[in-house]
Amino acid sequence: MLKLSKLHAPSIRLSGGSADPFSTNLAEWIRPVKQDQEYDLCLMGVPLSKSSISFSGAHLHPQQFRKCWTSFTTYNWEQDIDLKPLRIADLGDIEMHITDIAQCHQNIYEANLSVQRAYPEAVSIAVGGDHSITAPLVKAIVEATGARIGIIQFDAHLDVRDLSYGGASNGTPMRNLIESNTIRGEDIVTIGLRNFANSRQYRDYAEQHGMNLVSQREVQQAGIETIIAQAMAILDQKCDQIYVTFDIDVLDQSVVPGVPAIGPQGLLPVELFESAYILGKWEKVQAIDFVCVDPSVDFRDASTRVSLHIFLHFLSGFYRRKM
Amino acid sequence: MLKLSKLHAPSIRLSGGSADPFSTNLAEWIRPVKQDQEYDLCLMGVPLSKSSISFSGAHLHPQQFRKCWTSFTTYNWEQDIDLKPLRIADLGDIEMHITDIAQCHQNIYEANLSVQRAYPEAVSIAVGGDHSITAPLVKAIVEATGARIGIIQFDAHLDVRDLSYGGASNGTPMRNLIESNTIRGEDIVTIGLRNFANSRQYRDYAEQHGMNLVSQREVQQAGIETIIAQAMAILDQKCDQIYVTFDIDVLDQSVVPGVPAIGPQGLLPVELFESAYILGKWEKVQAIDFVCVDPSVDFRDASTRVSLHIFLHFLSGFYRRKM
Amino acid sequence: MLKLSKLHAPSIRLSGGSADPFSTNLAEWIRPVKQDQEYDLCLMGVPLSKSSISFSGAHLHPQQFRKCWTSFTTYNWEQDIDLKPLRIADLGDIEMHITDIAQCHQNIYEANLSVQRAYPEAVSIAVGGDHSITAPLVKAIVEATGARIGIIQFDAHLDVRDLSYGGASNGTPMRNLIESNTIRGEDIVTIGLRNFANSRQYRDYAEQHGMNLVSQREVQQAGIETIIAQAMAILDQKCDQIYVTFDIDVLDQSVVPGVPAIGPQGLLPVELFESAYILGKWEKVQAIDFVCVDPSVDFRDASTRVSLHIFLHFLSGFYRRKM
Amino acid sequence: MLKLSKLHAPSIRLSGGSADPFSTNLAEWIRPVKQDQEYDLCLMGVPLSKSSISFSGAHLHPQQFRKCWTSFTTYNWEQDIDLKPLRIADLGDIEMHITDIAQCHQNIYEANLSVQRAYPEAVSIAVGGDHSITAPLVKAIVEATGARIGIIQFDAHLDVRDLSYGGASNGTPMRNLIESNTIRGEDIVTIGLRNFANSRQYRDYAEQHGMNLVSQREVQQAGIETIIAQAMAILDQKCDQIYVTFDIDVLDQSVVPGVPAIGPQGLLPVELFESAYILGKWEKVQAIDFVCVDPSVDFRDASTRVSLHIFLHFLSGFYRRKM
Amino acid sequence: MLKLSKLHAPSIRLSGGSADPFSTNLAEWIRPVKQDQEYDLCLMGVPLSKSSISFSGAHLHPQQFRKCWTSFTTYNWEQDIDLKPLRIADLGDIEMHITDIAQCHQNIYEANLSVQRAYPEAVSIAVGGDHSITAPLVKAIVEATGARIGIIQFDAHLDVRDLSYGGASNGTPMRNLIESNTIRGEDIVTIGLRNFANSRQYRDYAEQHGMNLVSQREVQQAGIETIIAQAMAILDQKCDQIYVTFDIDVLDQSVVPGVPAIGPQGLLPVELFESAYILGKWEKVQAIDFVCVDPSVDFRDASTRVSLHIFLHFLSGFYRRKM
Amino acid sequence: MLKLSKLHAPSIRLSGGSADPFSTNLAEWIRPVKQDQEYDLCLMGVPLSKSSISFSGAHLHPQQFRKCWTSFTTYNWEQDIDLKPLRIADLGDIEMHITDIAQCHQNIYEANLSVQRAYPEAVSIAVGGDHSITAPLVKAIVEATGARIGIIQFDAHLDVRDLSYGGASNGTPMRNLIESNTIRGEDIVTIGLRNFANSRQYRDYAEQHGMNLVSQREVQQAGIETIIAQAMAILDQKCDQIYVTFDIDVLDQSVVPGVPAIGPQGLLPVELFESAYILGKWEKVQAIDFVCVDPSVDFRDASTRVSLHIFLHFLSGFYRRKM
Repeated sequence: MLKLSKLHAPSIRLSGGSADPFSTNLAEWIRPVKQDQEYDLCLMGVPLSKSSISFSGAHLHPQQFRKCWTSFTTYNWEQDIDLKPLRIADLGDIEMHITDIAQCHQNIYEANLSVQRAYPEAVSIAVGGDHSITAPLVKAIVEATGARIGIIQFDAHLDVRDLSYGGASNGTPMRNLIESNTIRGEDIVTIGLRNFANSRQYRDYAEQHGMNLVSQREVQQAGIETIIAQAMAILDQKCDQIYVTFDIDVLDQSVVPGVPAIGPQGLLPVELFESAYILGKWEKVQAIDFVCVDPSVDFRDASTRVSLHIFLHFLSGFYRRKM
Repeated sequence: MLKLSKLHAPSIRLSGGSADPFSTNLAEWIRPVKQDQEYDLCLMGVPLSKSSISFSGAHLHPQQFRKCWTSFTTYNWEQDIDLKPLRIADLGDIEMHITDIAQCHQNIYEANLSVQRAYPEAVSIAVGGDHSITAPLVKAIVEATGARIGIIQFDAHLDVRDLSYGGASNGTPMRNLIESNTIRGEDIVTIGLRNFANSRQYRDYAEQHGMNLVSQREVQQAGIETIIAQAMAILDQKCDQIYVTFDIDVLDQSVVPGVPAIGPQGLLPVELFESAYILGKWEKVQAIDFVCVDPSVDFRDASTRVSLHIFLHFLSGFYRRKM
Repeated sequence: MLKLSKLHAPSIRLSGGSADPFSTNLAEWIRPVKQDQEYDLCLMGVPLSKSSISFSGAHLHPQQFRKCWTSFTTYNWEQDIDLKPLRIADLGDIEMHITDIAQCHQNIYEANLSVQRAYPEAVSIAVGGDHSITAPLVKAIVEATGARIGIIQFDAHLDVRDLSYGGASNGTPMRNLIESNTIRGEDIVTIGLRNFANSRQYRDYAEQHGMNLVSQREVQQAGIETIIAQAMAILDQKCDQIYVTFDIDVLDQSVVPGVPAIGPQGLLPVELFESAYILGKWEKVQAIDFVCVDPSVDFRDASTRVSLHIFLHFLSGFYRRKM
Repeated sequence: MLKLSKLHAPSIRLSGGSADPFSTNLAEWIRPVKQDQEYDLCLMGVPLSKSSISFSGAHLHPQQFRKCWTSFTTYNWEQDIDLKPLRIADLGDIEMHITDIAQCHQNIYEANLSVQRAYPEAVSIAVGGDHSITAPLVKAIVEATGARIGIIQFDAHLDVRDLSYGGASNGTPMRNLIESNTIRGEDIVTIGLRNFANSRQYRDYAEQHGMNLVSQREVQQAGIETIIAQAMAILDQKCDQIYVTFDIDVLDQSVVPGVPAIGPQGLLPVELFESAYILGKWEKVQAIDFVCVDPSVDFRDASTRVSLHIFLHFLSGFYRRKM
Repeated sequence: MLKLSKLHAPSIRLSGGSADPFSTNLAEWIRPVKQDQEYDLCLMGVPLSKSSISFSGAHLHPQQFRKCWTSFTTYNWEQDIDLKPLRIADLGDIEMHITDIAQCHQNIYEANLSVQRAYPEAVSIAVGGDHSITAPLVKAIVEATGARIGIIQFDAHLDVRDLSYGGASNGTPMRNLIESNTIRGEDIVTIGLRNFANSRQYRDYAEQHGMNLVSQREVQQAGIETIIAQAMAILDQKCDQIYVTFDIDVLDQSVVPGVPAIGPQGLLPVELFESAYILGKWEKVQAIDFVCVDPSVDFRDASTRVSLHIFLHFLSGFYRRKM
Repeated sequence: MLKLSKLHAPSIRLSGGSADPFSTNLAEWIRPVKQDQEYDLCLMGVPLSKSSISFSGAHLHPQQFRKCWTSFTTYNWEQDIDLKPLRIADLGDIEMHITDIAQCHQNIYEANLSVQRAYPEAVSIAVGGDHSITAPLVKAIVEATGARIGIIQFDAHLDVRDLSYGGASNGTPMRNLIESNTIRGEDIVTIGLRNFANSRQYRDYAEQHGMNLVSQREVQQAGIETIIAQAMAILDQKCDQIYVTFDIDVLDQSVVPGVPAIGPQGLLPVELFESAYILGKWEKVQAIDFVCVDPSVDFRDASTRVSLHIFLHFLSGFYRRKM
């Protein structure tokens, strides 16, 4: 390359990203996928939000998630872990169709199928997008592996809305998976259900299908470690693999202002950080997603920074699994 | 009505309000008052903020409070209560004069008097507006019932400012009620008083008049259930009825960015949710208000969502009282 | 109805809407449709924006358009016209599907078909929504009337994007109408085309199909009255009816900050006000739409106020046609 | 004063105000009033907005007006005038009552009366506040001087609302002055009246009382110099003194986003700059005000910067009168 | 001074600052320094942010800090302390050079040197600015007193960045002090270090130089009182004086949205309030600073209000020390 | 590269950038520099704003300038020019030092020197940054070419501030160039000087040094084509090369809200577009810069879109020069 004095290669440079050889930020560490290389973890963006019931810019989350990489280092001080030895690839974003949402879901399915087949050993990390993406993502894993998948869902909402009212929207992924016989209701543990954010009828549906339901207050009273231990006990025997889905709206509105369905009485970030660390250590967890952050209504990327920290705690747990 | 294909009646449609027959949102449940119908609860908006010492858009709170109804359901998951059996009416907003604030207070007095007479059995719920509205609201109840009223005031401030400095502003309602002989100081319990938000002189005034004062830290140390139990013990014997006033600025600035007098070291939402639930159950509580939320400086209606949730917890307690 | 002192019927009350018997605002004048009544004009909201190529909240425009009605009166001072004698109905909003955009377009088609049949004499006014709505709206008119329709399109863009790249998006309505044989290219006059907002290839397509193209600078140099007169001369003989579509992004970014594709070198509001007045007078204009205003990125509803004023100038011209 | 190295006296320091001995900004030039000093011009803030019909933070304008002083110099390049020789005093803000708006108007009256008596030769400049302040300001001048006052009003609105609907609000000052026999209708020239911002009934009232009315389009067509010359011709013979009131909402919404009643089809800043310069030169103009800028909804103080520039052009004209 | 009816002296009047003789706000209490007067505490603004690695408006903090003084009183309710007897001076802001950052640091050094010499007994309070200011502030104290200074640093970051990468920026103050032999590493206690905000290499540097490091979780687990007691035990014997530096980014992003390097997993305000109170009581603490609040990206001054409350708790502790 | 279904290479994807083979956006056309390739134009970012007198985020402009490339095509409709045949390179950003502003200016000098030497035939385009960058940029050209350079400066301000007050800030570039004997005052034409934005003293300085000064009103009255023709006539004979610097604050605040020194009475965008087109055609113009846009205070990138359009009109003129 041509050598010009003091001139740097063109790039979108982000605040906070000043070069320092004694510190590694995430953008320096997580790089685009390369051929013929093995990976422990594969990350992909799923920029779909037109499937949302309410107006959502969740499709902007993958790009904002990557932008925030310059603001954080690879070093977990509390655990004294530097994540750098982990082999992680950024696979890029899944292509979306402008006007055909069913086609978008089909693209997600196909993309994840090819990811599962290309990297069968790697943990796959999907950065949404809204919660509708979880259904095709899980279907692709079942197709690729034939495994019985258990789901740990962190969510303020049940997401079992009847699909005949608006199709495969962000209110439906769990019902979609149950009614397509992809997942059994009893293999789902939903944690963080919130007051005045669900209906008695949908709770009936969930209970009739055997879903395991834990409210926000139950988390608060029992402690998140106990709840996670119980979820693992429920799923460990019967499931081959675990899929973890973090709907960020499970958190309190005061800590994540940038999710479409904000509300009071939510979980706290530390409860998700702790959960992610524990689940990162668990061998059975092979896939994870982060959904329903809308950067267009956030304040200073606070909500994206939280989803990014959950991801980092998951990686820290995964480090313990591997190293 | 004329039948036009796929066309809906004109309305201000709000985000989040997609039709779903298996879930009821608050806007579908709380409807305008109808003649010759009995109600358990009556709600009215009191859009007055010109009486505020600092610049306030609290008059916008009633309309924003109603707008947020589409975002929440009638179902309290933690208590497994669906509020729908309660009979509640929206009486609309009290008319305000553009330039005569004393006339506004007079209108509030007259409107509440007519409400108390029309619905003597119903609990009345006033959605402010700034705190100056509490004085005429309470005076109307005393006029209508002749009862000895006790007040539980959640507030960062004493609100006993001398009326000769600026008249019946939002800094004066408690002094106004005491000095008009409407309420005895000893029948007031003020909870959540805050550091650097009051003066030693006004504390002297309050103590000399027998008001019962509880600071934020005292709530934190004793626990809110204990504080509420003590307040009830103080007032139960001597008062016929209890009026509860929630000045939302009692909460910490990190959870309610949209109140005029924000500050650190405030109460937490869960403390008010818990209080509202307990007080909802208590037979003596016949009137309640929510004041000092200013939607024009809020972020994503977070503060209005909190005042709405306090209201919903009060209704949940009231459900236990009735059902 | 129950008479309560000083209490008004529940409503979303809007700033600026203080009662004054000597002045009529638009919200007092434009009322929901009533059965068995005749109308000169019918207005409908078309809240669709998921069909947009870039992220758009244009579906919020109909509700914001109505909200702004309280801020303006029925009186055109410059023309000394009071619009009140015109008979206008608000038909409400067309129902949208959450995840099926093709179904949304079908709903628009069906709704407009029923409107054309119910009110064959009335001028229909569609408040979008993004520009994809124009195609089904026009198709419904052709179906209902069998007329040869001419289109006057105010737009920075040609909107002849190939439908195989993303389907019936907001970049395609003119091509959609031409290729479905609904409209002939020669019957379209596009006014306000902008620098660096189109491609040479799409200009070739438009020219090959006989579309009549007028750039922003041509408007500036010839004067808008001349341009409109030329457009009318082109279409008057061969077309039975004229459809006028205002894509608000034809205006300069400094006057309409709230459109998705803002840019410099646009038309000025007065040019559209003048056009709307002239076209309102023309008997052949039987339908009109306003598209691509996104209130979620606007500043103080400035862009909605502009679309509303174009509408009011059209009504003023229409008044001259009728009275 | 104690000499501490590199430490500056405490002050609210504003952006842009870096010390430079070769340039004088307005904050360095316009200083607080001093006793026993003569002045050519006296400026006072009138921070009242509770009298507004719609929600307004116009009371914040005086402080923002002063804040912007650091951003502009005393030098009018186009006229090659340096304003520094003019003797100008800042009298401070008129005291307002918190809850008694009638008292506020009384305070304005009394304050201006004392100003007129203390500085009978000086031109007085009132920085509002909303338009209700003009009535007591003019009444005080009439009381102090006994003069027949003519008014040149730049305004989108007539401001002749019936006082029985809401009292002495910002919609009433002209009617207030006429009906209190302070000013004759024929001595008022209103310039910039706007489409859809007034009613036919109020226009009737104004015409019946002889007010001289000029619409926005009439300004555009005749040119502002002609309009001002005509206004001066109307008032010159019969009036002893002229009062000029600038309601900033006369300007187009694209140039003053921060006024409560923004709208399209307004005047342009250059038309007011030109007017202010011409009127500054006219000996009869002895008082002037600036009203209805609301800094709390402005963007980067653009609207305050415009009101400040009108003021500076008036001063430039006044410089020609004096020097 | 000239007496004009109802007119107040010119001033930047701030919201919330309505006169009330029974309550004293901070702006009424903390006044500009006067010659020949003794003080217990001296406050100075240090408006420097160009030394920041990321884009920062921290130089705006001193003026915003003072602006917020009108919103809070001198009365600490929880401790029943009125701060008014304390003698405090506002020394103003240290002068900054526009383009020479090294000169800015030199100015800070010289200004503080003159403060230390003029008021050797007073506690000095520096309101930054970014964290680079701490190095010259401490150097001046060492120069003036010859004392061995211990530092208690509340910070998410170590601030031991290598100075050869960008000079004396906000990432370097601790290393700067150590390598200039101003402070020994073992005399520094850093509290609140955060996950993913530091690197292993810099931790190595800090540990090799004997710095005492406490992470956020260690604070949470041990309790802040214990941590402060341990810090005092470490430093008490060997140090003559203690300097306390509060980098506000040590707090969680949900409570201080307006710091450049926001992030989750931070300390809580109450932990700093408590610390400041305890340290205020400790005789050895003679200097304190507040850095890295950027009002230009804050929400409703929430972050400045927090830094102001830490200051007020320090003063409350200092009151106990003195009274 | 590995082929994964529906997955795109990692990238920061920007709104508006949907793939369409029949349209080319600027981001697809302007690509990073490649070795051993010839170019007609070279673009470089100069992200420096710490040299600004007032708080400025102008260093963010280069990245925002590139981001907006996806929103505009290469096709100039009015001129029927497709820019694609021009050979343009993006050289990236010049490296800045964190705390040493003089070093930043040195880096700019060195970088531009190497650019001039590597591409002596190409037109160089610098995207600032604040106006201080113009001095080292021009010095490098003089060093590289030995040419007598004339400058056409579009600016509201003279930029001849005395360097002893704050050093080489954004208020000084013209004085810097004159006093370093790089440029003669008579070889500078400054266009768009604004009322109340300069001082009489600095005008004296500029006139004494022979600078050619044109005010905003002079542009308005003579027409921009005339002014540019005059500027070209002044410089054509005596200068070898022309440098054009666009300080975007020359434009009116209503069209560029995102410049630090916004104000009324500025030039209009079309005047700069026209100028840029004419100057693009002129063989002598070999370098150009765009300075003082601050994206952090802009609204929807309106100001960056304007600077980008000036650039595109310059390219259109350059196309005429070359093709």
